[in-house]
Amino acid sequence: MTNSKLEQRLNKLGLVLPVAPDPIGIYEATTILGGLVYISGQLPIANGTLQYKGKIGAELSINDGYKASKLCALNILSQINRLGNNYTFKRLIRIDGYINCKENFIEHSSVLDGASDLFSSIQGNNIGHVRSVLGCSSLPLGAAVELVAIAEVNKR
Amino acid sequence: MTNSKLEQRLNKLGLVLPVAPDPIGIYEATTILGGLVYISGQLPIANGTLQYKGKIGAELSINDGYKASKLCALNILSQINRLGNNYTFKRLIRIDGYINCKENFIEHSSVLDGASDLFSSIQGNNIGHVRSVLGCSSLPLGAAVELVAIAEVNKR
Amino acid sequence: MTNSKLEQRLNKLGLVLPVAPDPIGIYEATTILGGLVYISGQLPIANGTLQYKGKIGAELSINDGYKASKLCALNILSQINRLGNNYTFKRLIRIDGYINCKENFIEHSSVLDGASDLFSSIQGNNIGHVRSVLGCSSLPLGAAVELVAIAEVNKR
Repeated sequence: MTNSKLEQRLNKLGLVLPVAPDPIGIYEATTILGGLVYISGQLPIANGTLQYKGKIGAELSINDGYKASKLCALNILSQINRLGNNYTFKRLIRIDGYINCKENFIEHSSVLDGASDLFSSIQGNNIGHVRSVLGCSSLPLGAAVELVAIAEVNKR
Repeated sequence: MTNSKLEQRLNKLGLVLPVAPDPIGIYEATTILGGLVYISGQLPIANGTLQYKGKIGAELSINDGYKASKLCALNILSQINRLGNNYTFKRLIRIDGYINCKENFIEHSSVLDGASDLFSSIQGNNIGHVRSVLGCSSLPLGAAVELVAIAEVNKR
Repeated sequence: MTNSKLEQRLNKLGLVLPVAPDPIGIYEATTILGGLVYISGQLPIANGTLQYKGKIGAELSINDGYKASKLCALNILSQINRLGNNYTFKRLIRIDGYINCKENFIEHSSVLDGASDLFSSIQGNNIGHVRSVLGCSSLPLGAAVELVAIAEVNKR
């Protein structure tokens, strides 16, 4: 779908694309190879500030985690959007989620649903994505969630 | 190899394909792009029940971990098998293993061998796969192991 | 670039390729598919010995972590180099970094820069790579860092 179509669909869901966060080092936010775009790990950042910091299941609830995942997913879309009009988002292929949580946490899937539900709402009846998720002991900047993605794009 | 060939080879090893577990959320177990199939993170589930729960090196032994990895690998094959007769398994490209364990655990490779040995037995003299493994503090449902895979398939 | 060109560029930086570590199990160090090479998780090993063991932010400093990442990156290049003269390194597509550290660690990006800075120095003005990084509770052999990579190669 075109960038304006993507933004329309998000607006219908009451959402706007956040400004795509810049990389924190000498690497790229995205790189394209064939019809695939690889996207660097996205944190729950909005307006340049980390919005969800700490551990899910401790200082943050599962619902916080859901919202953090959704924000990471919006940043993924924002990075794709920043590729400009030469490439348009076709579909999400894969997300890998890293959840910052305690040892006894087991509801990783509920947290990652924040991202999967968003992609599902946007893509409509298209084929879905695959995913994996793990619980880790720490994340960059103390973030609650990090998402890594591969998406298919159309070249115009 | 065809699905029946795959099942024959497993049977020779005294193994049967488990029923492929359903995704736990709005995502797919597999997605195909070009000649590759991306497979969602697989847990050591059989008959709908998690078979290996807890931490390797604590309540579970390395041998338990080996068997848990093998079961995850069988679920990977089962997901590929479920693609039907239009696609047949060619070879495993890559597995990434997440091992639920304590901080002092260092035998991750022995655990992941449960999967690598299985793929090696099935593929015969074919080129092998690459892999990575890490120790994480928690996994979905409290699983002991999770495996993420990319495989090459032939379209018929 | 050719293997000798790669070694020249490293030599200019005062670096030499380490001997590529062998896999620890029945898997491959690299596998090629199309123009991509997938590389198994690389540890900070030189001369067959793990050089950085333990947790960054505890017994090891961030600077140790930076150097460990750089060594993992050199091993990635060494694995590509071992493909022989039929394939030459074109560019790094993606690295995923696993940092062995304590729960309160937040400087993962500074550690991974050891790898990104190296690839950036070698590739000159080429397009950069994407990356992700997480903090994990343990790694194989007690390693401080593990890097997983996908690179683009040219077939000659």
